[in-house]
Amino acid sequence: MIRFDCDYLEGAHPKVLKKIVETNYEQTAGYSRDEYTSSAIKKIKKLCKREDIDVHILVSGTQTNFTVISSALKSYQAVICTDSAHINVHETGAVESLGNKIIAVKNNEGKLSSKQVEKIVAQHYDQDSPEHTVMPKLVFITLPTEYGTNYTKKEIEDIYNVCKKNDMYLYIDGARLGYGLVAKDTDIKISDLPNMCDAFYIGGTKQGALFGEAVVLVNNDLKKDFRYFIKQRGGLLAKGRLLGIQFDTLLDKDLYFTISKHAVELALRIKEAFINAGFKLKYNSFTNQQFVILPNEVFEKLNKEFALYKWEKEDSKNVVARVCTSWATTEENVNKLIEKIQKL
Amino acid sequence: MIRFDCDYLEGAHPKVLKKIVETNYEQTAGYSRDEYTSSAIKKIKKLCKREDIDVHILVSGTQTNFTVISSALKSYQAVICTDSAHINVHETGAVESLGNKIIAVKNNEGKLSSKQVEKIVAQHYDQDSPEHTVMPKLVFITLPTEYGTNYTKKEIEDIYNVCKKNDMYLYIDGARLGYGLVAKDTDIKISDLPNMCDAFYIGGTKQGALFGEAVVLVNNDLKKDFRYFIKQRGGLLAKGRLLGIQFDTLLDKDLYFTISKHAVELALRIKEAFINAGFKLKYNSFTNQQFVILPNEVFEKLNKEFALYKWEKEDSKNVVARVCTSWATTEENVNKLIEKIQKL
Amino acid sequence: MIRFDCDYLEGAHPKVLKKIVETNYEQTAGYSRDEYTSSAIKKIKKLCKREDIDVHILVSGTQTNFTVISSALKSYQAVICTDSAHINVHETGAVESLGNKIIAVKNNEGKLSSKQVEKIVAQHYDQDSPEHTVMPKLVFITLPTEYGTNYTKKEIEDIYNVCKKNDMYLYIDGARLGYGLVAKDTDIKISDLPNMCDAFYIGGTKQGALFGEAVVLVNNDLKKDFRYFIKQRGGLLAKGRLLGIQFDTLLDKDLYFTISKHAVELALRIKEAFINAGFKLKYNSFTNQQFVILPNEVFEKLNKEFALYKWEKEDSKNVVARVCTSWATTEENVNKLIEKIQKL
Amino acid sequence: MIRFDCDYLEGAHPKVLKKIVETNYEQTAGYSRDEYTSSAIKKIKKLCKREDIDVHILVSGTQTNFTVISSALKSYQAVICTDSAHINVHETGAVESLGNKIIAVKNNEGKLSSKQVEKIVAQHYDQDSPEHTVMPKLVFITLPTEYGTNYTKKEIEDIYNVCKKNDMYLYIDGARLGYGLVAKDTDIKISDLPNMCDAFYIGGTKQGALFGEAVVLVNNDLKKDFRYFIKQRGGLLAKGRLLGIQFDTLLDKDLYFTISKHAVELALRIKEAFINAGFKLKYNSFTNQQFVILPNEVFEKLNKEFALYKWEKEDSKNVVARVCTSWATTEENVNKLIEKIQKL
Repeated sequence: MIRFDCDYLEGAHPKVLKKIVETNYEQTAGYSRDEYTSSAIKKIKKLCKREDIDVHILVSGTQTNFTVISSALKSYQAVICTDSAHINVHETGAVESLGNKIIAVKNNEGKLSSKQVEKIVAQHYDQDSPEHTVMPKLVFITLPTEYGTNYTKKEIEDIYNVCKKNDMYLYIDGARLGYGLVAKDTDIKISDLPNMCDAFYIGGTKQGALFGEAVVLVNNDLKKDFRYFIKQRGGLLAKGRLLGIQFDTLLDKDLYFTISKHAVELALRIKEAFINAGFKLKYNSFTNQQFVILPNEVFEKLNKEFALYKWEKEDSKNVVARVCTSWATTEENVNKLIEKIQKL
Repeated sequence: MIRFDCDYLEGAHPKVLKKIVETNYEQTAGYSRDEYTSSAIKKIKKLCKREDIDVHILVSGTQTNFTVISSALKSYQAVICTDSAHINVHETGAVESLGNKIIAVKNNEGKLSSKQVEKIVAQHYDQDSPEHTVMPKLVFITLPTEYGTNYTKKEIEDIYNVCKKNDMYLYIDGARLGYGLVAKDTDIKISDLPNMCDAFYIGGTKQGALFGEAVVLVNNDLKKDFRYFIKQRGGLLAKGRLLGIQFDTLLDKDLYFTISKHAVELALRIKEAFINAGFKLKYNSFTNQQFVILPNEVFEKLNKEFALYKWEKEDSKNVVARVCTSWATTEENVNKLIEKIQKL
Repeated sequence: MIRFDCDYLEGAHPKVLKKIVETNYEQTAGYSRDEYTSSAIKKIKKLCKREDIDVHILVSGTQTNFTVISSALKSYQAVICTDSAHINVHETGAVESLGNKIIAVKNNEGKLSSKQVEKIVAQHYDQDSPEHTVMPKLVFITLPTEYGTNYTKKEIEDIYNVCKKNDMYLYIDGARLGYGLVAKDTDIKISDLPNMCDAFYIGGTKQGALFGEAVVLVNNDLKKDFRYFIKQRGGLLAKGRLLGIQFDTLLDKDLYFTISKHAVELALRIKEAFINAGFKLKYNSFTNQQFVILPNEVFEKLNKEFALYKWEKEDSKNVVARVCTSWATTEENVNKLIEKIQKL
Repeated sequence: MIRFDCDYLEGAHPKVLKKIVETNYEQTAGYSRDEYTSSAIKKIKKLCKREDIDVHILVSGTQTNFTVISSALKSYQAVICTDSAHINVHETGAVESLGNKIIAVKNNEGKLSSKQVEKIVAQHYDQDSPEHTVMPKLVFITLPTEYGTNYTKKEIEDIYNVCKKNDMYLYIDGARLGYGLVAKDTDIKISDLPNMCDAFYIGGTKQGALFGEAVVLVNNDLKKDFRYFIKQRGGLLAKGRLLGIQFDTLLDKDLYFTISKHAVELALRIKEAFINAGFKLKYNSFTNQQFVILPNEVFEKLNKEFALYKWEKEDSKNVVARVCTSWATTEENVNKLIEKIQKL
């Protein structure tokens, strides 16, 4: 069985693992006070072309999202996001469990628009008694989206402007940031991000690391005492250097983007194969996740040799299948899958 | 200025106030351990034709909702309700602030259907890894709804059956329960309620009391240690007898329903006047709240003499106005309003 | 049975009740936007000799404490108080239930000292990694204390200075503020309070009102969006005027302090009677609560005619009994109790 | 600089790391549904001689503690532990941040006694109105304690019996469980643990793993839906196999206890050296953490070559220094430290 059902099937990129092995006997300070973490942070600042950002590396995506969001908001403040946002559907209500309401609006191919944000804001600022409703305070978007689609620079800037006008934060979940930024359907560079949001994170788990997500805090309001929140929420790893070593390696000589490109190229080949074989795509993704509509029996047939993910039912006869590539996907396995698709 | 903008404009029904005055110098046990509260509870049990229910009288509606819901649910369990539900829009995210997600679905004239509940349940019980999503565990409905409309017995029973099948609770917000139960568009009696839900409350604040909401807990799972929750959430009044005295009086000789009928009759007269004057209703309510679509200038004109509530914009030229009656509304004032409507 | 076991046995001072009855049919704006509340707030500002304070009237003491504290603190910030503090022992963990740790230190006759605060602060600011411990951020004291004792002006100023030096808030629970301020063992005036703390509340429930506690916010940081917190925590009463009317009446012509003096005078007569009869006091209180050590059999004997509160066991043979007076206590009943004590 | 200041200075035991490298390219199911985790769980069940336990491997100690505790308790239930307990002082109020009060009592060399638990229970079950105080529901102890000391089997059984009698849970934090169980001052075996508590965890981070703590749930009440809590609290690692691989390796051929013995032997040699050099111990520990009282200047002198941890001030002239060994500590480095101590 060759698996394409998710992008966290293997361990870490060999260079990452090599560095962990090499440094194994070094004695370093705990809790991310080590030199590898410092070096990783320097690289992120350079990459972002901003020295005034704060960087913290946390363990997992859910943890990163709830730590950033719950640290930014008071109990009566709310998050605006799409109904398909990871925090809304796949994090077991973690944001709410820490006290904040999520206002979810209908996604458009996984995306949120500045108009939708404006509408929600308008609904919540009743002049007489605003205190009966929550106060929308943070906009959450995912880049690329949960459906593999991308925002353009203009689209995020529009959202950011609405945020600034209404004293709200914009936070970008970058679980698959590399796969998104190397895709052809966006003009965003990583150095643009600090200028168009208040916080974002650079995903590691799905992009070459064993685990680890690097949070970039741009807005000064969000920086204060952030380590207290990390510790309290369980994200301050005793051997924090593991996080530092991994990002220090991934960000060395552009490795992060090189492996992102590799994955995206292979994903696009699979996409093309499905299109050529006459299947329709659920979303038009140019990143490492592809969503294709397959008749139930085709899905079952493919799944005998290649694990795809049954994302959702399309209707009684069809299923939406997710196909993922990653830094670890081999050309050989992709060729096998494509051959199989051609023979369907 | 005569006000019809809400149903909590005046104090309490004179009989309620009289009893508070009469008993003022009595020394009673604190925290709802007094005899007036015991007597009120007995009356509620008799009214509900069930001796096995637990009754607690809390102070306000928001407090009642978050106390019941947060006591019933664990942090990964969620509430299903309409997008128009009071807990979703007008309680400042109180439910989420105590840790539980709300899954809001589109209302139909303020109502939720059993089909909608089934659909949400189906979406959340992924066999492989249900723990990535919240677990829907409580359905919240309002009787009558926030839009003044009513459920039939069959409609609520259908929802309750879906709940039982899926090990979920059904909780009914009865902030205006009396106004709802006396209306002609429902066949529900108060003694039906314990047989068709796990918990509900009998609203006092909007129905003749100064304040106070009587929670009825039917399901044994919800009864345990409920006083701990009341105390912790701020609902255990030192002079709890105030709550007992009020309900004891309101439930004496059917006063609660008598004043409900009074309010509803007046509301229907106003409704008729608006219809006869050619205005459209936003919702077809038979209870004490009426929602009528008025041109902006008509709304402004009326508001010079009669305070109505600007519920929401209908479009750029029209507004949805809420008109409320209550136990305290006088026929005289209603006549004045109707005369004004007729002259519009 | 004549009861002295607590100070919330009766309803409200007759003038308060009279005003509620008189205004019963007035139509007022909901949620404390009414004129009675405005008038009460004006009186509190005048009494405090400060126009720049914010005043909000909430329903109950537990609710007031958790609303103020949870609104002031982030999740990693903690409260310092005595082990005997009401929030630490008699509010069912409400402060913690909303996310904040309480650091309780040993009380000295119910009181906290500035030295104790300094010591806790010193323990929590480890230079290397402060984020592993909570950050003490708010000091909570009760005036008068839960044991009826009072702070001097100097004592609270010393605590306040430690707070200011360490960027912490001082919040004073004034559930029985009137009874404290009229006592002879303090030199504090109500107009001193805004100059020696960041927030406090003026208790109503135990001091002539049916219910109600008036929160005074002095520090600007605590004022922002406070109504959101009140609403979310269940303290925004629909008929908020009830709170306004009560304080407006209690603060009229010094009624609040007149009834406080009445209660304290009677309490001191009872205290004297116990001393003269050879009993020891657990705490040397000059306010309306007296704590006397009684042999078990004496306690039982007294309790046949006069309800006292069994505060705690002193040892196997003795009990600490609490005796309370209030605005409602009559001289006649006190005389009866004293006669009984004299005959023990 | 040779470091002895903590027990998480290096990476992982070489066998653990070797296994991670070997399995790097395997494709496994995410979220701990992989075979390595299954194998590790089997080994833990065998070690504990109980097939009916549930085992989950989480990432870090703080995360493990707050996940277990917050999943076990309702908002009005509290934890009893020592004032020195890790959850009380070094986890940034995480337990309270999720809603539960901690009742901390004075430790005796880091330990809690069954008598102390009984006393707290007695204080909290006031017959009239227990709901005004929290309900103690979980006892938390650490084995070995934060001060390196151990409980005997009898001591924990006594606590467990008090728990059972009062319907409370006993939960044991085993961050350094191996170092404790191999020490000569306890008679507890790992297979005893499921019979004397409701839940415990086997620490990995400080005992040979890069990270990871294996939670053992014994009481059925704690097992239900635990994966929901893990996910919601950020502990469900996408590449969960990393946790499985590490424990599968550590528990193979007794490696976990072999390395524990190694560390403890070296710690006892250092302890002896300090005693022989005339220094006093703060606590009499037989595990891998030693606490020695050193004059300030001696501490400074040692710290030029050997990092020790300044645990706390003993008095103005002396400091309590913590010295830790681990699986990674070498005999060579210990010899160097001992030589240095001998020359002080």
